[in-house]
Amino acid sequence: MRTDLERFFNPRAIAIIGASQDLNTISGQPLKFLKSHGYQGRLYPVNPRYQEVADVKCYPSLAEVPEVPDLTLILVNASRVADVLRQCGAKGVPYVIIFTSGFSEMGGEGVKLQQELTAIAREHGIGVIGPNCQGMMNIADQVFAGFGSVFNADYEPGTVSMVSQSGGFGFSVLNLSSKDGGLPFRQMVTTGNEIGVSTLDFIDYYIRDPKTEIIVGYIEGLRDAGRLLEVGNKALAARKPVLMWKVGNTEQGQLAARSHTANLGGAMALYQAAFRQSGILQVEDIQDVVDYGRAFRCGRLPRGNRLAIITISGGAGILMTDECIARGMRVPKLAPETGDKLRSFVPAYGSLLNPVDVTAAIFNNTELIGLTLQAIVDDPNVDCVAMINASLQGELAAKVATQIVAGAARTDKPVFICWSARDAVAPEAYAMLDAARIPHYKSPVRCGRAMAALSWYAEALRRRDRQSTEKALTLGSATARKMLKGITADVTEYNAKRVLSEYGIPVTREALARSKDEALEAARSIGYPVAIKVQSPDISHKTEARAVRLNIASDGELASAYDEVLANARAYKESAQIEGVLVQEMIKNGVEAILGVTNDPLFGPAVMFGLGGIFAEVLKDVSFRLAPVTASVAREMVEEIAGYPVLAGARGRPPADVDALVDAITHLSALAIDLKDYISELDVNPLFVLPAGRGVKAADALIRPKTAETRK
Amino acid sequence: MRTDLERFFNPRAIAIIGASQDLNTISGQPLKFLKSHGYQGRLYPVNPRYQEVADVKCYPSLAEVPEVPDLTLILVNASRVADVLRQCGAKGVPYVIIFTSGFSEMGGEGVKLQQELTAIAREHGIGVIGPNCQGMMNIADQVFAGFGSVFNADYEPGTVSMVSQSGGFGFSVLNLSSKDGGLPFRQMVTTGNEIGVSTLDFIDYYIRDPKTEIIVGYIEGLRDAGRLLEVGNKALAARKPVLMWKVGNTEQGQLAARSHTANLGGAMALYQAAFRQSGILQVEDIQDVVDYGRAFRCGRLPRGNRLAIITISGGAGILMTDECIARGMRVPKLAPETGDKLRSFVPAYGSLLNPVDVTAAIFNNTELIGLTLQAIVDDPNVDCVAMINASLQGELAAKVATQIVAGAARTDKPVFICWSARDAVAPEAYAMLDAARIPHYKSPVRCGRAMAALSWYAEALRRRDRQSTEKALTLGSATARKMLKGITADVTEYNAKRVLSEYGIPVTREALARSKDEALEAARSIGYPVAIKVQSPDISHKTEARAVRLNIASDGELASAYDEVLANARAYKESAQIEGVLVQEMIKNGVEAILGVTNDPLFGPAVMFGLGGIFAEVLKDVSFRLAPVTASVAREMVEEIAGYPVLAGARGRPPADVDALVDAITHLSALAIDLKDYISELDVNPLFVLPAGRGVKAADALIRPKTAETRK
Repeated sequence: MRTDLERFFNPRAIAIIGASQDLNTISGQPLKFLKSHGYQGRLYPVNPRYQEVADVKCYPSLAEVPEVPDLTLILVNASRVADVLRQCGAKGVPYVIIFTSGFSEMGGEGVKLQQELTAIAREHGIGVIGPNCQGMMNIADQVFAGFGSVFNADYEPGTVSMVSQSGGFGFSVLNLSSKDGGLPFRQMVTTGNEIGVSTLDFIDYYIRDPKTEIIVGYIEGLRDAGRLLEVGNKALAARKPVLMWKVGNTEQGQLAARSHTANLGGAMALYQAAFRQSGILQVEDIQDVVDYGRAFRCGRLPRGNRLAIITISGGAGILMTDECIARGMRVPKLAPETGDKLRSFVPAYGSLLNPVDVTAAIFNNTELIGLTLQAIVDDPNVDCVAMINASLQGELAAKVATQIVAGAARTDKPVFICWSARDAVAPEAYAMLDAARIPHYKSPVRCGRAMAALSWYAEALRRRDRQSTEKALTLGSATARKMLKGITADVTEYNAKRVLSEYGIPVTREALARSKDEALEAARSIGYPVAIKVQSPDISHKTEARAVRLNIASDGELASAYDEVLANARAYKESAQIEGVLVQEMIKNGVEAILGVTNDPLFGPAVMFGLGGIFAEVLKDVSFRLAPVTASVAREMVEEIAGYPVLAGARGRPPADVDALVDAITHLSALAIDLKDYISELDVNPLFVLPAGRGVKAADALIRPKTAETRK
Repeated sequence: MRTDLERFFNPRAIAIIGASQDLNTISGQPLKFLKSHGYQGRLYPVNPRYQEVADVKCYPSLAEVPEVPDLTLILVNASRVADVLRQCGAKGVPYVIIFTSGFSEMGGEGVKLQQELTAIAREHGIGVIGPNCQGMMNIADQVFAGFGSVFNADYEPGTVSMVSQSGGFGFSVLNLSSKDGGLPFRQMVTTGNEIGVSTLDFIDYYIRDPKTEIIVGYIEGLRDAGRLLEVGNKALAARKPVLMWKVGNTEQGQLAARSHTANLGGAMALYQAAFRQSGILQVEDIQDVVDYGRAFRCGRLPRGNRLAIITISGGAGILMTDECIARGMRVPKLAPETGDKLRSFVPAYGSLLNPVDVTAAIFNNTELIGLTLQAIVDDPNVDCVAMINASLQGELAAKVATQIVAGAARTDKPVFICWSARDAVAPEAYAMLDAARIPHYKSPVRCGRAMAALSWYAEALRRRDRQSTEKALTLGSATARKMLKGITADVTEYNAKRVLSEYGIPVTREALARSKDEALEAARSIGYPVAIKVQSPDISHKTEARAVRLNIASDGELASAYDEVLANARAYKESAQIEGVLVQEMIKNGVEAILGVTNDPLFGPAVMFGLGGIFAEVLKDVSFRLAPVTASVAREMVEEIAGYPVLAGARGRPPADVDALVDAITHLSALAIDLKDYISELDVNPLFVLPAGRGVKAADALIRPKTAETRK
């Protein structure tokens, strides 16, 4: 399939199969809009019923079109699409947009029809966009190949390019953002059911397109999600921010998964991990696209997350502070020398703390604005600056804007403005800010949110730089692979922990006993107290089966416990094949954690971390990353959960051995990659994190092999 | 102080002390704007330097003004405000707006000046608005008594009234909401440092004002927060929604508080409890005011939280679903008969699930929209309906709007529209929806958010109805009051639990032993295993002092443990006064919870609930309510924490005795009220919640008395 999409966005000729003479219908609109927006290439409507459509010569079939069009639009009924697509293949058409609905979104017969299209496209190497989509706009080059109300309007070309799996919503975003939001778009494509050229193909193209600066995506799901990290990192390297909707998060199919790790994740956790790992910014509403787009157009990035706020409205300053802190920025103390400078002109009833409340008084002498800005941007504790002008308007507004533009020109720190005057009453001021690419917002919350997005992205770039020097651990174990080869049943604790050991993850001291005597011998060698657990591939939930006894203190206790757990196991499941009884050291003073691997069919192996028990299972307080996970990423995983203070030493506990925990996560990541063809899920639950310097120990583990059943 | 604010908003005469002839200065603007907006009453500028200001006769002093003005505006320097306020008192002026800055916001001398103003106002019974504020607008009656850019504009009068502690931000909200947002305001007042007439006084007035339908507030803090519940409930009774900003939430002063309960709360937790208990809707941005305001103007409330979505854009439908579910609504399955009706005209490639994707095809015959709407609103599983029209525009838009208006008229369920066409391309359609009071939004997220707000409010009304028949428990204990009277030191476990017992909260079986023999006797009577704990008012953190031993199994163990904990206590604090050693039963199989009381200087007594230990302290997973707490409210408290599944029986645990827990909370609420003059904080930590039917038991408790120190 072709993915060099230059010819798709700039086709020299376009055929329109199923073009209608009624230009208001869906099959009439593409030709109408191509013409009305001044498309420069050649147009070939195809429809055996007409001689011409909209004054353009019409052909009875694609075969008779006198050249190979770079792009063909298919507007025929669902039942005829496969035939037409074959004709495109025979003709050698590189790109096709299938607008028609009635495929997989319909279920049943539609799914089969769609599979047929996929096969035809693959056979002929056609780049298919759609089906069930609304087309494409290349605003910069006047190619309006689609239908819908939004095609009626003319658009100023910009530097934002978007790809959307939803036609209606995607074009609403384009229309509202560029018209009402003042953020002009360059290119837009909707991919519908996305059987051919994918969202990631388009993002990849936009990264290479020299005139695209900001990329926007709307996805419901990606068939090629495994490429997300690679494409996201390419965008980071190109310094083109990717703003992304991921919708449909409420009912992600967590049904099939049976292990803790898979239950806790679901697709959304992996999407979010990929977004975070590759600096893709999630957006929640149309306004975010506009606000973040304006932020990125300033062309500056803060060196850190420290914000200084200059305000004439105390209230707006507090609102912005709340919003920015909630989104990970800091509003730190200013350097003492900054206070000294400000004190000379800020009224005594103002505030020299951050936010700096300069009060409306300084607008009596607008030159003070320049001095204030200078003092703030010179502050070594400040990475970016926001100025809040309330509803200032008219002549005064223009004067203030002049000072802001001059002040912002003297620094490379981002300067953002919250200015609540309506457009109608401060047009000159806003035009000056726009010309100087100084982002401005009507609401302190929106302004704060946009700054936080810029700051988050700058941090993603810094993180990428830091981590680019870090190598991910790779480990290989032929022993482990041999142990797991061909296995279809769950791997029980003893063997699962032997696998962990192969990859250097510490496990409890233990021995598998096949008789009471072996158990007694093992216990004496390990040292009391011990735990014992029946090992059976048929009993995954040992506690539920009462096949576990903890804190056994003596030979006598062990002897009776041994009989008891075996009897319980048999009572629980008479037919259970019993491998033996695991005798295990008891771990004290450890914090219970849980580690996991989920080997997703789309994303590949991912690693999970959380605190054990209720934290993970009830509160879902866990972190995910796609493998490989380097040490610094593992540390992020540990530090980002809400329960982290438990490890850091909350409630008078000694700090736990976070270094060893980080180490275990990187080793688990290496395991996940080495065994990705063998395992579908792995739980280490619990992993005891001992006090600092004393390491970690896996006390139980379960491996679910990658059988045919789970591979689907 | 006067709080019947009719005369404030409709003054027959206004004096302006410190009026300037330069009408562009702050002290010149109020007179200018009163005149330019057509104020109908009499105006008396007061300034000894002028004969007239802006063609209005000027008086040398307030004494010489020929009548008692209903309202006086004070615009003189801070140092002169007190004198002028005394003159207002002498004249008998009922209401005064002090615009001047330089008071408590400045600290130091400003604080003292402000205290003086407060005293003068009280002495003369003057209703003071301000100081440090931006004035008032009564748009409906053309009284524009303030300064700032926003006073330049004319406003259409509406039914929204606002009170704001921030001038700049408050007027920005008014200006943007009414001008750009199409939500016209009726009255607006800014209260600045709020030494006199308070935010709640104004809200109370707006509740009584027959022409105000929606109330908006912006607060940083309330001096009379204890009235919040009462005022909020009055607004609920009047069915006037209150939309409220509470800002400054990131650094609430949690420093002084030393107990867990107070640490976990801070003022914000109590504000939020009060908002929830009285149906006050929190807003986060200006757009919320516009969006929620439009929602409430529809004049309908849903009977439940079940939403049906009709869409022509699958993507927008998913976005709305995500947003609504995240905000507590449900998007349920439709009744089978609804599917049958829809099937007759929705294309096969559409979706009959909820969201119902009717596809653009039904717009070919707009009468189908009426049928669709009718089928959906008739569905017994549906309480409100949203329709998503993507970017439909022009003639078709008008036809669709006609159908929507007709369809909405046939039901009393709320019908909301998400319609992304720009205003310019669907003016007729939007005008029809506005005329029919059908709320419409450009973004599915904003539309969903507004519906969820309406739904939340409707639930608050239903909750109020349910709870109005419920009586709060009241209990009194002369014994407890006597125990606590005059006490200044923390009350230790043994006595704190005796207080709990007085109010019917079950505590562990225990005895205070003053010798080893007493301890042994107590242990035998309670039954081993037992715990022992040294009791000393000087040792609050018994565990830290190693003055606790758990799980003591025999006389021998007890004897040596007794000596050990006493020795540890003395080593920890040599001078500690030791009351004895508490011998206590060990509780097994209970879920550790924490209950608390915080007796806030502003709010009065409030009750807290959380799961014990790390849940409460690290994750802050707790719920607060102001006392009194009825049984159904206590149950809400229990069910709303994230860790609730632990009590409900997560991870194979037996369900805990939630009924007994609810009971304990209502008893604690009764205690908090009965002892509100005696205690400042109380912790029950842990409270063990035993399996269902077996009750709860307080295993430790601490009471911090209401001493002079904590009362400030």
